[in-house]
Amino acid sequence: MTLQDKIIVADLQHVTGFRAGGVSIGLRKSGRPDFAMIVSDTDCTLAAVFTTNQVKAAPVLYNMERLQHNASRIRAVVTNAANANACTGEQGLMNSRQTAAWVAAELGIEPEQVLVQSTGVIGVQLPMEKFASGIPVAVAALDEGGWAEAAHAIMTTDTRPKAVSRQCAGYTITAIAKGSGMIAPNMATMLAMIVTDARIPQPALQTALSHVNQVSFNCISVDGDTSTNDTVLLLANGATGVEPDLAAFEAALMEVCTELAHMIVRDGEGATKFITIAVSGAPDDTSAHAIANTIATSPLVKTAFYGSDANWGRIVAAAGRAGVALDPTAFQLWFDALQVVANGTPTGYQEAEAATIFAQEEITVQLVVGAGQGQATVWTCDFSHEYVSINADYRT
Amino acid sequence: MTLQDKIIVADLQHVTGFRAGGVSIGLRKSGRPDFAMIVSDTDCTLAAVFTTNQVKAAPVLYNMERLQHNASRIRAVVTNAANANACTGEQGLMNSRQTAAWVAAELGIEPEQVLVQSTGVIGVQLPMEKFASGIPVAVAALDEGGWAEAAHAIMTTDTRPKAVSRQCAGYTITAIAKGSGMIAPNMATMLAMIVTDARIPQPALQTALSHVNQVSFNCISVDGDTSTNDTVLLLANGATGVEPDLAAFEAALMEVCTELAHMIVRDGEGATKFITIAVSGAPDDTSAHAIANTIATSPLVKTAFYGSDANWGRIVAAAGRAGVALDPTAFQLWFDALQVVANGTPTGYQEAEAATIFAQEEITVQLVVGAGQGQATVWTCDFSHEYVSINADYRT
Repeated sequence: MTLQDKIIVADLQHVTGFRAGGVSIGLRKSGRPDFAMIVSDTDCTLAAVFTTNQVKAAPVLYNMERLQHNASRIRAVVTNAANANACTGEQGLMNSRQTAAWVAAELGIEPEQVLVQSTGVIGVQLPMEKFASGIPVAVAALDEGGWAEAAHAIMTTDTRPKAVSRQCAGYTITAIAKGSGMIAPNMATMLAMIVTDARIPQPALQTALSHVNQVSFNCISVDGDTSTNDTVLLLANGATGVEPDLAAFEAALMEVCTELAHMIVRDGEGATKFITIAVSGAPDDTSAHAIANTIATSPLVKTAFYGSDANWGRIVAAAGRAGVALDPTAFQLWFDALQVVANGTPTGYQEAEAATIFAQEEITVQLVVGAGQGQATVWTCDFSHEYVSINADYRT
Repeated sequence: MTLQDKIIVADLQHVTGFRAGGVSIGLRKSGRPDFAMIVSDTDCTLAAVFTTNQVKAAPVLYNMERLQHNASRIRAVVTNAANANACTGEQGLMNSRQTAAWVAAELGIEPEQVLVQSTGVIGVQLPMEKFASGIPVAVAALDEGGWAEAAHAIMTTDTRPKAVSRQCAGYTITAIAKGSGMIAPNMATMLAMIVTDARIPQPALQTALSHVNQVSFNCISVDGDTSTNDTVLLLANGATGVEPDLAAFEAALMEVCTELAHMIVRDGEGATKFITIAVSGAPDDTSAHAIANTIATSPLVKTAFYGSDANWGRIVAAAGRAGVALDPTAFQLWFDALQVVANGTPTGYQEAEAATIFAQEEITVQLVVGAGQGQATVWTCDFSHEYVSINADYRT
């Protein structure tokens, strides 16, 4: 267990009425934990956002049904790693339903109160016999302090578990997530599960999550690829009886989601750097996001960051192909506090100053395009040899 | 000189009334040739397509003026490597004009009859004293057999020169190109110069180039990044007096451009594989192109090809995020002749069969999405460790 793991374990807060856990049910050859469970003693309201990929995994389709028909009576979420249950057809959907039924039977609740998530390889049916034998083991391991174990059990190419807690006025928010590859902005991204013991009606919960998701998870990118399984779930069981001020709740949720989103970027496949790209002066926020996103997904920009090469020309070129009408002679560009481009051409900055900034593990790129008031910030990582190694060898 | 270089030199055809050459004018520390010149003894009609990047290099802006005002009187094209003359402001535009003026004076023609191209690093002013001394050297080196030298002189990260000739009914087409990185489909791509001694009026020439460009250069991708300098020029000097059948000319031009486009992909930065992605059954050709392009630029797909991993799930996932409404249960997918997906789920194919195909240097991916009659084919390469190395160290 690394230092960061310990910090996470130490800092995670119990949430009244929730238990969690993570165990191995034999889905990984290594024997590492591969099955996480979160259970509430009482009914929860549910908010959720799902992948915008046209190819949606079976558990996503299953959970979308639950959100539509049972969003105020959720009791449990189970998540398996090592298998995405995507492109698995009718059998895949039946396997998600069967998983929910077994979990419900073990917990003494209804199948419709169970959410099911999967992450891992695409196109392989779930080994259901392992679920049959593993689900009772997972239920037996449930504990109000089991969040770190749950965060560990949902990892795939992640190198670190990702979890956050916030203590608020009389209630708590605790959240876990996974994600390292197939991460792209502007959609519901990766897997995250957030729980709170505050009492919040379902529509307000969904509104808060949708707002926050748009500027947290939807603003990160590792590789520009959108998963078939991306899901963020937010469960509120109201066990404290606290009915929070919704603005305060949304602010706390924003902190939790932004911190988790940043953890995913920092643990991006092969990442050696954490890069903030802030675009302002765009015609509107949407076009600012398009520009920031084009910079953040450019292989040429990302390899330059990896090489600690302050190659601003690639950033300007990426902005120019973002599909937004711009006047390049109005561009201003900073690396941290060093302005490198003024009115579209280089300032008299010293290459050594830029090199010092690019040698850092965290770099902020600020681009003002001078075409209006729109702005957006996205977070990304660099593109390394290790990224290629991880993804060239993923299934082998 | 490699085997492929020799073949190109041997196969390139003279074009009546054209001379070409490539020399070093001292722009590269290595002393490699860095300046190419193509001259016609008589006026040419010009067709051209330019980058759609909002950030256009000075020579692109200069050439766009020439296309608008002087498209039937062009006599010369000069191209320098090692410096893109992009993001160089008013001074950069003045430097392109000065280059044209010096070339015109040396050749005894008008500055408005000279086109100027640049490729290389962004944001550095051209060292004009080297142009002043180098242009007479380039003119002295002009030769009707100088096409291979010209093709060599415009290379940047290219590892091989790119050139093609076609003998047609009474006339010839010869073309050279460069491009290895910052290559993205759906725009005028990289630098290519095509000349013919057929007599073709300017509007017909532009129509032919625009048609052909759309399904050749615009259908290749190395990294999804669009250059600030992309340009394809087509010059016809009519020196043979032959007025070709336009359909036959366009067919020959299609062969030339497709072959050059494939050469660029094969020489893509770090490329070890040449991949054809054919999408059919889309709602229309535009959406077929969007799907093919999303697959071709996915880092996860490209690293899987590099790793010889027949990871079809990544291809299906990329298709699903292309912004086209699709029914994934209608997907059919082939690797060469091996069907791996039927109706959205895996066929009973053997992994060993797929592995054999993925071990090849050329692979065809055929995806039928079952939503209409639209189709598109794009060509791309894989994403290797070498790609990261090339682009992490480009300016150092």
